[in-house]
Amino acid sequence: MSALPMPHIGVLPAGALGTIADVAGVTVGHSTIDNGAVQTGVTVIRPHRDDPYLRKVPAAASVINGFGKSIGLVQVEELGVLETPIALTNTFGIAAVAQAQIRAATASNPQVGREWPTVNPLVFECNDGYLNDIQALAVEGKHYEAALDSSAPDFKRGSVGAGRGMSCFDLKGGIGSASRVVKVASSDLTVGALVLANFGRLPMLTIDGMPIGRELAQRRRATEAKPEQGSIIMIVATDAPLDARQLKRLSMRAAAGLARTGSVYGHGSGDIALAFSTAWTVPHDDDFIATPPLVSDARLDPLFHACADSVEQAIVDALWSAATVTGRDAHTRLSLHDAVPDLERLLKQRTT
Amino acid sequence: MSALPMPHIGVLPAGALGTIADVAGVTVGHSTIDNGAVQTGVTVIRPHRDDPYLRKVPAAASVINGFGKSIGLVQVEELGVLETPIALTNTFGIAAVAQAQIRAATASNPQVGREWPTVNPLVFECNDGYLNDIQALAVEGKHYEAALDSSAPDFKRGSVGAGRGMSCFDLKGGIGSASRVVKVASSDLTVGALVLANFGRLPMLTIDGMPIGRELAQRRRATEAKPEQGSIIMIVATDAPLDARQLKRLSMRAAAGLARTGSVYGHGSGDIALAFSTAWTVPHDDDFIATPPLVSDARLDPLFHACADSVEQAIVDALWSAATVTGRDAHTRLSLHDAVPDLERLLKQRTT
Amino acid sequence: MSALPMPHIGVLPAGALGTIADVAGVTVGHSTIDNGAVQTGVTVIRPHRDDPYLRKVPAAASVINGFGKSIGLVQVEELGVLETPIALTNTFGIAAVAQAQIRAATASNPQVGREWPTVNPLVFECNDGYLNDIQALAVEGKHYEAALDSSAPDFKRGSVGAGRGMSCFDLKGGIGSASRVVKVASSDLTVGALVLANFGRLPMLTIDGMPIGRELAQRRRATEAKPEQGSIIMIVATDAPLDARQLKRLSMRAAAGLARTGSVYGHGSGDIALAFSTAWTVPHDDDFIATPPLVSDARLDPLFHACADSVEQAIVDALWSAATVTGRDAHTRLSLHDAVPDLERLLKQRTT
Amino acid sequence: MSALPMPHIGVLPAGALGTIADVAGVTVGHSTIDNGAVQTGVTVIRPHRDDPYLRKVPAAASVINGFGKSIGLVQVEELGVLETPIALTNTFGIAAVAQAQIRAATASNPQVGREWPTVNPLVFECNDGYLNDIQALAVEGKHYEAALDSSAPDFKRGSVGAGRGMSCFDLKGGIGSASRVVKVASSDLTVGALVLANFGRLPMLTIDGMPIGRELAQRRRATEAKPEQGSIIMIVATDAPLDARQLKRLSMRAAAGLARTGSVYGHGSGDIALAFSTAWTVPHDDDFIATPPLVSDARLDPLFHACADSVEQAIVDALWSAATVTGRDAHTRLSLHDAVPDLERLLKQRTT
Repeated sequence: MSALPMPHIGVLPAGALGTIADVAGVTVGHSTIDNGAVQTGVTVIRPHRDDPYLRKVPAAASVINGFGKSIGLVQVEELGVLETPIALTNTFGIAAVAQAQIRAATASNPQVGREWPTVNPLVFECNDGYLNDIQALAVEGKHYEAALDSSAPDFKRGSVGAGRGMSCFDLKGGIGSASRVVKVASSDLTVGALVLANFGRLPMLTIDGMPIGRELAQRRRATEAKPEQGSIIMIVATDAPLDARQLKRLSMRAAAGLARTGSVYGHGSGDIALAFSTAWTVPHDDDFIATPPLVSDARLDPLFHACADSVEQAIVDALWSAATVTGRDAHTRLSLHDAVPDLERLLKQRTT
Repeated sequence: MSALPMPHIGVLPAGALGTIADVAGVTVGHSTIDNGAVQTGVTVIRPHRDDPYLRKVPAAASVINGFGKSIGLVQVEELGVLETPIALTNTFGIAAVAQAQIRAATASNPQVGREWPTVNPLVFECNDGYLNDIQALAVEGKHYEAALDSSAPDFKRGSVGAGRGMSCFDLKGGIGSASRVVKVASSDLTVGALVLANFGRLPMLTIDGMPIGRELAQRRRATEAKPEQGSIIMIVATDAPLDARQLKRLSMRAAAGLARTGSVYGHGSGDIALAFSTAWTVPHDDDFIATPPLVSDARLDPLFHACADSVEQAIVDALWSAATVTGRDAHTRLSLHDAVPDLERLLKQRTT
Repeated sequence: MSALPMPHIGVLPAGALGTIADVAGVTVGHSTIDNGAVQTGVTVIRPHRDDPYLRKVPAAASVINGFGKSIGLVQVEELGVLETPIALTNTFGIAAVAQAQIRAATASNPQVGREWPTVNPLVFECNDGYLNDIQALAVEGKHYEAALDSSAPDFKRGSVGAGRGMSCFDLKGGIGSASRVVKVASSDLTVGALVLANFGRLPMLTIDGMPIGRELAQRRRATEAKPEQGSIIMIVATDAPLDARQLKRLSMRAAAGLARTGSVYGHGSGDIALAFSTAWTVPHDDDFIATPPLVSDARLDPLFHACADSVEQAIVDALWSAATVTGRDAHTRLSLHDAVPDLERLLKQRTT
Repeated sequence: MSALPMPHIGVLPAGALGTIADVAGVTVGHSTIDNGAVQTGVTVIRPHRDDPYLRKVPAAASVINGFGKSIGLVQVEELGVLETPIALTNTFGIAAVAQAQIRAATASNPQVGREWPTVNPLVFECNDGYLNDIQALAVEGKHYEAALDSSAPDFKRGSVGAGRGMSCFDLKGGIGSASRVVKVASSDLTVGALVLANFGRLPMLTIDGMPIGRELAQRRRATEAKPEQGSIIMIVATDAPLDARQLKRLSMRAAAGLARTGSVYGHGSGDIALAFSTAWTVPHDDDFIATPPLVSDARLDPLFHACADSVEQAIVDALWSAATVTGRDAHTRLSLHDAVPDLERLLKQRTT
């Protein structure tokens, strides 16, 4: 990581950690596979530390561009809750991870799929096939378990976990995270984002409004018109008391943060955002659902700003935190810092 | 199977086979696991016999009730095509089958996930946990492959393949199929349906408009108010030239056929319909997509009727074709014929 | 209206009134225009008697077939509330009625559209152009106001209000209503439906599972293959405490009740259902929204049954309550009773 | 209008006119009401000059934030076509304009609503209530007709037509337009956008990546935390042969252009994009729909870029073209040029 301080996106303050873990209770864990041609892994986000099946987490998603193979969104749309931790991995790792989620749920609650309904696995993916030998199918259930076991409020970003083999703007991408704190009806509420950033071509790269990718692309003479095959998964957490309908609205604002980095939601990019609230849970099998007083829709704008800014910041953080990785067929993705030695100068051309 | 002829639903004629295979080119295969407490399997529907990744099939889905764990619908919604055969299995088998679909796609086209984009697995499921020891995770990739290899226009229905362990109206459910032929703009066009029927409580059972479930439930004194935990997957094929938007419209009419059998799309029932057309394909990587002249929306009603009737008939066919099965913990589901010796009388009380 | 008692659909009991007004607080009013070639009107449903802008009603809709020109559903989908009474009229009357809703909202609250946001008019329509000279644009704001003023728990059904000129199964359609009471977690909860029934061709007509339309069509030799140009609007009310996500689920079950009457959601039929709850309201401009304990999704099945049965019953009620009407160009629609003198016999052929 | 040249957004070239009319056949007309407290109007976009009911235009929309009262989107979603010109006006003008569209359709084709189905009016709106006495309901059918009659490839932007009373970033907004030309499979294809810009608070204003609103807000001490009550309608035209599913994808990219100007899709902002193609039409009542070869989805990225850039440019154009307007209660919105005399300096601080 560079000593150069990362630009702060927008005017809203970050939380203490500057990550999704600023939303109290949220933890993140990684399992990284760094083995020659195999450069991949699994990242897990836990909304709380209790049993996620017994205390379901309110959630909703926006599919901004559905070129993606995530598992679990049909049921999230219908019921508005999560039943498992949120897992991120490579495209061909989704099956192994979903299997592991099923095993974990039935291990905790043997009634699942018998007296009780089955469990809804929730796995998101990006294609890391440039750096990673994705056809090796290296992700196994044990990687999900290891990521889960290691989850903590303090976690690494960059070329780790599911982010190990990811590319972003033809540079090294991966895991990024950020948070913002806003005042809503005299309460301080927090929004945090974690992204698996694997999208974009170099000419589009925009950092804090500076379209530096244009110059970088000219330097590289990257006239290769290769279409985007990436994707980005954007997980948004908040301690604001919102219901699923409102969380869907919140998740949609990830599209604004994403766009500001240069994305136009490319055809081949699975751009998916999921938002959840830690303010309340839905019990597995009670007669009624008790919800706390919800933030009025007319008061959501600060949270919308916080979501867009957190997602943009998290994408920048993924680039900032990533280390250069060499993977299959000697493919290499340079980190932003390695690729752009004069980054400070490029970003300073604008004075605010 | 009973000698009692199955009632013909509605007034439209069936195709020659009376199954989804009346849509030329469509084939179906099963792999059945009948092993004590393990009663489950895989069913595969192939829209055509060529490489499904290179010649993508126009398709769209309607999620009537999203309590379900299907894999692949996000991308079908965005792009309107299938890239693999359609697989059906039990809820906890989805990961193994998706993995097998990924392996099959990369085996056929090693560029997949490397020079080319990844492949979108497409797996539907119902929960057969009453008869099947679903936690045994008995479905493996080899079962998908075996089902694929055995696919043919002539295929079994009832307690086979993915239908092996399924229940329907507290009776034995499973695989059912039907077809209808309609005239559209002086052409004969065919609609076929294949269902994986695993939904409904006995009191709701309605066959050809006869609510026979009420009497059957009284006989059983089935006052058990157990909620529905089933699901139904409805696959609709047609040789009509339709695009994805129109196929989504067509798939929605499966909800009408389903309702006529007594379903109210119960909370715990994942009721999902997918429709595809065999009239044209989308090449993997051409600059342009050539479509045939499409049936005008104003001419779709006969196809809508055919869809509803085919789905209703296919559900009846699933009940009619199923054999009694005993599975885990000595749970037994009686076939309709075994459970209702006087079925003929019950269905004849109405004279048309 | 006939002395013949209307069949009771299903096994659930109706409320005391047998209409949507069994949901306490709901009232309905009509304004009917019966003037030679002009046979049309307006029907209004008020969820409660307070200011609907200040106390917004939780609501959501399902568009089963979107060949329709309703006004207001974009905002209902986003915010999950109603801000006006629900208005029904003919297709070309929507503008006049929306205008009247805007006037009414600004008259009650002059801040609307100035210091406060604008108001979301909510108008549904069917095409009554067979009986009504729809191009006369006879519906005016005063008809909306008159319908509103006359709203009461006790209201007429059949060929009144928006139902005046409507056709259903080539018979006289119009306004129908019904209710069901179910036990949920030891509480008695009510679901009521009101339909504007203007869909279907005669051969499809099915009453309580009896496909009597086939025989009726043969009598008429109605070989006219005229496509359906009708529509049906299905308004579902409940006193169950549900949020917008759950009300969307509830509204979808209207599709089941509709299908049982013979509909396959014809291409040209705008089939739209909207459900609202009277159990709580959303204040216009508070910081927080207090919701009561909501019925758990796992307990929704009785409400789903009640919705499907209420909608089916309401459609039958529309046919049962309608009187023969003659309108433009001497077009006549016979009531069910006038058209089918032996209706009792046709419906009795089935013994349950 | 200022002599200061407007920044060119992005790297793609504009068409000859630099407006939506670069898409051949598209014309735009305005009717402006400038009368003291009444500052409003109507803008009409015609996709082609033939009868829009007989030659329906392929189209689809994305609702980015559904706090809006547009008329007609339910049917556009179902059928994927337009049947009328596209009309823009103020929120309380929608009814009068929809009425005028109905009158125009029946005047051209007296069968509409009689032998033929009814027509689907299509009206979009923003709330201009800050400058305009919106409760005066000043928009009448004649304004729609006048706008339609004046439609031409050469049209004014800024404070005209529906844009007359609109505000944007607490400055004068209104009508803006732009275009981009891209190469797709060796063809030059054009994308054009026209926006009705009425959204945003001053601190968010970002022009070409420069967040100049922050400084401007400090100057004004605009600490007023008034929530956004605006909206933006984004109409996207293309001569690329796309079907409705693809046009929906294209319309979604308007969200990227919008975000780059500072929007986070505020709660109270109805942010809606509609895209249509001029490459083909759907005949009113043929048996089949002939479509040209469609651009493959894998080739859509240049069009996606062009959409995002055109929309961003069109928003900047609305600000650039607008003139200061004073309306009801002496409310004044300064144009960007009047409000920011040193605009050139602010925009030049960044060197690319």
